[in-house]
Amino acid sequence: MRQTRGVREIHVIGIGAGDPDQLTLQAVKALRNTDVFFILDKGEAKADLTRLRRDMLEAHVPEGTYRVVEARDPERDRSAGGAAYSPAVGDWRSARADLYERMIIEELGEEETGAFLVWGDPSLYDSTLGILEEVLERGTVSFTHDVVPGISSVSALVARHRTGLNRVARPVQITTGRRLAEGFPQGVDDVVVMLDAHQAFRAYAGQDVDIYWGAYIGTPDEILVSGPLDEAAPRIERLRAEARERKGWIMDTYLLRRRPAEG
Amino acid sequence: MRQTRGVREIHVIGIGAGDPDQLTLQAVKALRNTDVFFILDKGEAKADLTRLRRDMLEAHVPEGTYRVVEARDPERDRSAGGAAYSPAVGDWRSARADLYERMIIEELGEEETGAFLVWGDPSLYDSTLGILEEVLERGTVSFTHDVVPGISSVSALVARHRTGLNRVARPVQITTGRRLAEGFPQGVDDVVVMLDAHQAFRAYAGQDVDIYWGAYIGTPDEILVSGPLDEAAPRIERLRAEARERKGWIMDTYLLRRRPAEG
Ligand SMILES: C[S@@+](CC[C@H](N)C(=O)[O-])C[C@H]1O[C@@H](n2cnc3c(N)ncnc32)[C@H](O)[C@@H]1O
Ligand SMILES: C[S@@+](CC[C@H](N)C(=O)[O-])C[C@H]1O[C@@H](n2cnc3c(N)ncnc32)[C@H](O)[C@@H]1O
Repeated sequence: MRQTRGVREIHVIGIGAGDPDQLTLQAVKALRNTDVFFILDKGEAKADLTRLRRDMLEAHVPEGTYRVVEARDPERDRSAGGAAYSPAVGDWRSARADLYERMIIEELGEEETGAFLVWGDPSLYDSTLGILEEVLERGTVSFTHDVVPGISSVSALVARHRTGLNRVARPVQITTGRRLAEGFPQGVDDVVVMLDAHQAFRAYAGQDVDIYWGAYIGTPDEILVSGPLDEAAPRIERLRAEARERKGWIMDTYLLRRRPAEG
Repeated sequence: MRQTRGVREIHVIGIGAGDPDQLTLQAVKALRNTDVFFILDKGEAKADLTRLRRDMLEAHVPEGTYRVVEARDPERDRSAGGAAYSPAVGDWRSARADLYERMIIEELGEEETGAFLVWGDPSLYDSTLGILEEVLERGTVSFTHDVVPGISSVSALVARHRTGLNRVARPVQITTGRRLAEGFPQGVDDVVVMLDAHQAFRAYAGQDVDIYWGAYIGTPDEILVSGPLDEAAPRIERLRAEARERKGWIMDTYLLRRRPAEG
């Protein structure tokens, strides 16, 4: 890690998708090398996920060697049911860039190192890197940043099911529930679906598809179901509804695997 | 981890794609909980990659608490230039299953724990899980197994380039060089390519594509190039040829990102 005088440094650290032991040694080193942690509240899972981050710091970083700055993520407004305020995507991004910019300027000393603790792997459906780019483009504050890769919920899902993402020499696609609702992706038989609030897999009943599903993967609440979609789907729907009711929020991911026509 | 009397246990441990600090805490725990490590020679990179695995053991597991069993992977015969023996895929699989079966029966005591150290993440283009399944199906030896996810070369690649795999709300596909040579995958603009011995990206010159390329990612030999494909491609070809010549083998991966037509 370079230490240049007078240049703020920022680590974007993937912390794994639920199991605190999914931290890498590199992530632990980066945590220990950080002065200021920025922790952003997001959505309903906020309390639980913020606690997990704080527990990680307590477990791995000597007390008194760091500060924590908590802020409310502007994206939160989107999920607020019936909120009058519903800005477009561009507005969110710039509201978040405003927030990040302000936090970096106000809370991170010029010779200090800050860190964002990103759920799973920072490369998958996470906005932190994009927002930092936007802050840099504004040119109001300068910093260098690096990224520590993390175990994604995708890797965690298939590990728990002891299966691969792709089949031999074949491709795999990672997509969202919204996209899957528009149709099964072309050219692939293995599809991982994230960010699915509407169980889009139901549209593929009766189609020779297997599903490997997991919720709260890596946490004590973990639930796993796998099997032919037609058999598994009703079970998943029931378990998902119960868990969501019980905890108030749910995070789930699944792999859909189309059985090859030619055996 | 369950400990059942008289049942062999096997960990399939993702060890990251080159940087020994990419090991997770969970992987380190699994290493320490292992009696017998099975290390398989594969292809030309064999000496370097075997050394990296042995270094990891030395760094994290107390000496004298484990044994190492090395074997030559039957797949090696495929890459032997001009070898007379060139079995079909099905034969390889069963030759490998034979080997794994024999190693487990002969080298792993009934109350012991064995481990396979898998490069990157066991879920991506790795045959270990499939082979263990095949051994289990034969029914000649019984064991339980679990999978410890690892940082894949895909996560490592985009982390080093400080970019995401997918763009906001969009899908990403992970595929092979051979498939990319058949055409740009349908329905996606972000494609990660592995196992590409022929620089299939060259076919997409002049098409408004950016490339994020990396070789030996996470190791001291790491090389990174990114930019518009037309500018980056000649540079990548040159660096790749030089590095391959110098080291005798190369591992590279890249993300192709098609620029959206609508800005
Ligand atoms: C905003 S994305 C962030 C993904 C994260 N960067 C990663 O690498 O996993 C959130 C989605 O990830 C998935 N997810 C994250 N953690 C999960 C977990 N522990 N169990 C199941 N799904 C999870 C869910 O599909 C959820 O909708
Ligand atoms: C048989 S696959 C194994 C992939 C591995 N399981 C993973 O998760 O990265 C081998 C391919 O992975 C990619 N690869 C693995 N390690 C790499 C590294 N350190 N740098 C660049 N590419 C790598 C290359 O595309 C290589 O052809």
